[in-house]
Amino acid sequence: MSDRDGDEAHYAALAQLELAPLWNLQANLFPREPSRRAVPFLWRYADVRSQLIHFGKTLSMEKAERRVLMLVNPALRAQSATVANIYAGFQLILPGERAPAHRHTSHAFRFIVEGEGASTTVDGEKTSMKPGDLLLTPGWAWHEHLHEGKVPMIWLDGLDFPLMNLLGVTFFESLASRVQTPTRSADRASRLYAHARLNPVVPLASGHASHASPITNYPWERTDAALRAIGFDVEGAHERGVVLDYVNPITGGPVLPTMNCRIVHLPPGFDGAYQRRTASEIAYVVRGAGATVVDGKRFDWRQNDTLALPTWSTYRHLNASSSDDVVLFTYSDTPVLQALGLYREDGGHPDFISAAP
Amino acid sequence: MSDRDGDEAHYAALAQLELAPLWNLQANLFPREPSRRAVPFLWRYADVRSQLIHFGKTLSMEKAERRVLMLVNPALRAQSATVANIYAGFQLILPGERAPAHRHTSHAFRFIVEGEGASTTVDGEKTSMKPGDLLLTPGWAWHEHLHEGKVPMIWLDGLDFPLMNLLGVTFFESLASRVQTPTRSADRASRLYAHARLNPVVPLASGHASHASPITNYPWERTDAALRAIGFDVEGAHERGVVLDYVNPITGGPVLPTMNCRIVHLPPGFDGAYQRRTASEIAYVVRGAGATVVDGKRFDWRQNDTLALPTWSTYRHLNASSSDDVVLFTYSDTPVLQALGLYREDGGHPDFISAAP
Amino acid sequence: MSDRDGDEAHYAALAQLELAPLWNLQANLFPREPSRRAVPFLWRYADVRSQLIHFGKTLSMEKAERRVLMLVNPALRAQSATVANIYAGFQLILPGERAPAHRHTSHAFRFIVEGEGASTTVDGEKTSMKPGDLLLTPGWAWHEHLHEGKVPMIWLDGLDFPLMNLLGVTFFESLASRVQTPTRSADRASRLYAHARLNPVVPLASGHASHASPITNYPWERTDAALRAIGFDVEGAHERGVVLDYVNPITGGPVLPTMNCRIVHLPPGFDGAYQRRTASEIAYVVRGAGATVVDGKRFDWRQNDTLALPTWSTYRHLNASSSDDVVLFTYSDTPVLQALGLYREDGGHPDFISAAP
Amino acid sequence: MSDRDGDEAHYAALAQLELAPLWNLQANLFPREPSRRAVPFLWRYADVRSQLIHFGKTLSMEKAERRVLMLVNPALRAQSATVANIYAGFQLILPGERAPAHRHTSHAFRFIVEGEGASTTVDGEKTSMKPGDLLLTPGWAWHEHLHEGKVPMIWLDGLDFPLMNLLGVTFFESLASRVQTPTRSADRASRLYAHARLNPVVPLASGHASHASPITNYPWERTDAALRAIGFDVEGAHERGVVLDYVNPITGGPVLPTMNCRIVHLPPGFDGAYQRRTASEIAYVVRGAGATVVDGKRFDWRQNDTLALPTWSTYRHLNASSSDDVVLFTYSDTPVLQALGLYREDGGHPDFISAAP
Repeated sequence: MSDRDGDEAHYAALAQLELAPLWNLQANLFPREPSRRAVPFLWRYADVRSQLIHFGKTLSMEKAERRVLMLVNPALRAQSATVANIYAGFQLILPGERAPAHRHTSHAFRFIVEGEGASTTVDGEKTSMKPGDLLLTPGWAWHEHLHEGKVPMIWLDGLDFPLMNLLGVTFFESLASRVQTPTRSADRASRLYAHARLNPVVPLASGHASHASPITNYPWERTDAALRAIGFDVEGAHERGVVLDYVNPITGGPVLPTMNCRIVHLPPGFDGAYQRRTASEIAYVVRGAGATVVDGKRFDWRQNDTLALPTWSTYRHLNASSSDDVVLFTYSDTPVLQALGLYREDGGHPDFISAAP
Repeated sequence: MSDRDGDEAHYAALAQLELAPLWNLQANLFPREPSRRAVPFLWRYADVRSQLIHFGKTLSMEKAERRVLMLVNPALRAQSATVANIYAGFQLILPGERAPAHRHTSHAFRFIVEGEGASTTVDGEKTSMKPGDLLLTPGWAWHEHLHEGKVPMIWLDGLDFPLMNLLGVTFFESLASRVQTPTRSADRASRLYAHARLNPVVPLASGHASHASPITNYPWERTDAALRAIGFDVEGAHERGVVLDYVNPITGGPVLPTMNCRIVHLPPGFDGAYQRRTASEIAYVVRGAGATVVDGKRFDWRQNDTLALPTWSTYRHLNASSSDDVVLFTYSDTPVLQALGLYREDGGHPDFISAAP
Repeated sequence: MSDRDGDEAHYAALAQLELAPLWNLQANLFPREPSRRAVPFLWRYADVRSQLIHFGKTLSMEKAERRVLMLVNPALRAQSATVANIYAGFQLILPGERAPAHRHTSHAFRFIVEGEGASTTVDGEKTSMKPGDLLLTPGWAWHEHLHEGKVPMIWLDGLDFPLMNLLGVTFFESLASRVQTPTRSADRASRLYAHARLNPVVPLASGHASHASPITNYPWERTDAALRAIGFDVEGAHERGVVLDYVNPITGGPVLPTMNCRIVHLPPGFDGAYQRRTASEIAYVVRGAGATVVDGKRFDWRQNDTLALPTWSTYRHLNASSSDDVVLFTYSDTPVLQALGLYREDGGHPDFISAAP
Repeated sequence: MSDRDGDEAHYAALAQLELAPLWNLQANLFPREPSRRAVPFLWRYADVRSQLIHFGKTLSMEKAERRVLMLVNPALRAQSATVANIYAGFQLILPGERAPAHRHTSHAFRFIVEGEGASTTVDGEKTSMKPGDLLLTPGWAWHEHLHEGKVPMIWLDGLDFPLMNLLGVTFFESLASRVQTPTRSADRASRLYAHARLNPVVPLASGHASHASPITNYPWERTDAALRAIGFDVEGAHERGVVLDYVNPITGGPVLPTMNCRIVHLPPGFDGAYQRRTASEIAYVVRGAGATVVDGKRFDWRQNDTLALPTWSTYRHLNASSSDDVVLFTYSDTPVLQALGLYREDGGHPDFISAAP
């Protein structure tokens, strides 16, 4: 550009002054639509599991603090993110082990994959963990794990630390005593809240993150009962499956302020409609087998596999079986985008900035 | 008053001009604390039931539209209110009868006392009714009752029509066809919502009152399971019993915008603390026997009895048994007072106007 | 009714048991549309003023506490209400007089009619009063009046005590010392908030009613400047006039949780569209002359007159002049109805229960 | 680490499987407190201005679309951010120039530095621009600039595109016709809203971003009047200065959902208290001269200079003059952090996650 040639000294001066010409950067900074930095990717549980079992033998909990394999998107290695803003990893704990207490700004949850006999203590309340259970550890809540059972336990960890680090607001603290003193009876929150639609009138734990659900464990037994009771008699089930949101009973909103957790139930032979949204999503296969076509590429999955669905990618789910159902557990950063007025679903709204809830 | 004597002509002129001197009325209009117009009162179910059964024989549903005996507070006959703002009545429907469809501004619910085989259709969805179930018919929702069972059915009706009439905003409409056309499968809302803390992602019924719960029936089976699971391991249980709020799963708030519904569970031998609040309350005895001391007067109650607890009265509950528990179903106008910043509980806050939620 | 004849003993028993048959009362309790208990009525300022001046001579402030003539609707004498839920009165204070400090649950405001030199002290802050100013005294705020000027002052008092008494939640307290100790500089809230759309970052006065505006005085000087700046370049101005809501700067909502205050500006020759709503309204003529046709009856008004517009009445305003504008100050119980989902405007929404904000 | 030596093959396999060991990354991903990636930095207006004027001569608007010099933090060049999440730049427009219409997901505002005669058209409404005015262009609103005056105009641009790009949700669109058709009279929003605390009752522009203020221009004339009226009679003024938030009149909240704009007024001789918060902030000097000490380093500033204040940095402001005041215009990403429950101010709260509003 000839303008530019004559201006070389000036462009050099800009750099010296920590100034930059917008006119050379505008297309990068203002893309016509979201630039998909993450790629769709499938992690096979068989691979993850065999590696975890290996490190169970060679890496002590004292060294590891948490023995976790992170599912890092090939395009997001700098952030260690699975898909923009959110993260998935698989954690292994062996009989007799204890993962010491700490807390952090990041909100976290566990979805239990296999094993029995472990527990998580969250802010003084011990909660048992069974396959299919969803356990919450809201931001800044003290939490530790203990395994008193007989076989290895593995669970899926979901966290929002990529978002926290992008925003630059992460705090972290270890508990000096490593072990919390119990302050309430075990499994109390589940007993209090998991039945029907009744809220006990109790003071919330002091220091409770105000936006997070007070429920520590959403047990699989209840989730499965809901799936059976509802069946597929729901509007739109043939397009998206039956979609159930885990909710905070105090607000009716998402279980954590930055992530919502969902169950997606696909009937035998399901061949879904295309979906696209500004949220980033992670899908874990609770049961069944099928495939997801993401931006034209097909990913065939089996039980316990995990799939990264990038922001603004177009995808549809398929159930490969004509006789068995599929259950997916999914989570995304939708609450963040909705809180900021940035959530968009494809499908023709002329003005995509969604109204406040 | 000598001032007044000389002013007689002027006072007469005031009346002529539809003016009134505040100085003569101030003490009446601004009482130092709420003037309890309602009186505490206990209605015995045995009395109510025998009258209902009689009118079941002599009064046809065609004449009655709804065969209901109203529990009218002796001090609130002009408003037909049970206690300020809210109302209770017992309704009888006989096998083979149908109560035609209508709708009104008032929010209503039913708590089932006895019988089986009846159903309520609310905005096109038929819901079955069993003892202990709580059914909602939010304001302006079409609703009708049908009894296809074999024995008489009786339930408690809760409505806010005294409030609606005080505010002067009641609308009412009969459905010309008397019977609604079903638009959804029976008992659908209960199947969708009653299990665990999962919200199905579905469009709400169009025309749904935005503040009201989408759940038509909170089944007793679930309520009772919650009572058993929770037991009495809740802070404050020895003072107030275990208190459970029925909630709107979309908002976490009360089931209806004007009334909240609660279960109060009192352990054997319970001898509660005094309570006082600006809300008006009605208590119905689901099971057990005991007493409530209201403003120094004792009311002994048995199963199915109903008690009016006036605004700002001081009361405490007692469980008369040392072996059996007591379950109360209570409701009040608390959501109205909270929405307007007028809810007050006794107990020492210097500034009683509660903060916004 | 023959059924009834044979049932006389049973009906008598019902009365004895404090039960009432719904089937005989349903039409009264559930009217097809709001029963307009209030009547439209116009109070002429000339009449009110001459009476006030008389009582200024014969009634001392010591006797009166507040020297107010209440505008009582001929159909609402039992409640001393001007129109359902809300109230208007004119208050006179003479040079040198002091009206002692008290507080009450009712929210109140003053709109100044004539005179200068008086002040109101609200929770320790003294605020001066000029014609056209709107002063707030939120519920449970201490307030007293003092007149240090030279001519009688008269203002319009607006209160919600009819609503508070209907709900049965009125509290009232006199300040033992009769005079508050100033805690902040005079006219501070107006200085802080009345300019532009800037909110000072300050702690709210402790004990401040959370829903109420922190602004003590919305000065007429500013209101009039807004009227001049806006002119009539607003959508819908030819149908309703230019309508301006006084707002709470912290929430953007109404100045008080139970009443919203408005300015309605009618251009010369204005002949407005019909309006109907479930709110009850009071209109005071700030300047100009015109008429309002209410339910077919015409009320011609002049400056300082006050008009009661009952719930669900149909009305339209007219400006009688082809050269001068009209300014009305109006207030209503709209925030109450909106908070409870009961606000309705005529105009064809099939489902009239308005959505939550 | 010897464990690791024996595990080399396994670590290689992890990389192959797109898995990563959390135990090697935890300290990086979970820092004990926010890692300050941005550095504090001061841009002198004299430098920026002379470069802008140069490019005004050599770079045509046709080539530039917007002639803006970006203030890029030396530590955030990859994102072109001034401080984490938000951005500042200075824009020059010359007499006769037009910057064509476009829109983007990013929210933006302009604070006018010098010149007169330019205008911005936002969604069909033309608004004039004077020094000290704050103009909003909410996300997805069409906007263009036109200069009909006689001297160069320069303003500060504030945008949240770093946040939008981190979240991966940027959309951008150019208007094919380059020029919008006016749909409302010029300066209408300012006339409607800028006077007193009165909200006109008008329908919002369709497609209006629901969280953003409807006010296009907050004129300096009003801001300055507020500063004069308030003086320094505000609690805490000696520690933080007088702090005024520009607000959205519909909600009382920030003017844009992602950025709040403030005026900070420092009296002569001001020597402020230290502040630290999780928000990132940019300060522009409207008038006066002084200094800010950031993390122990002193930055002396004059009128029109701009300062980057990184997340979790500790700073205090000083007014260098004993006779003249200082006015700062500042903005930050506080609304983002508050919406997500991540806002923290230093000062000893044991649990720093702020309560929901």
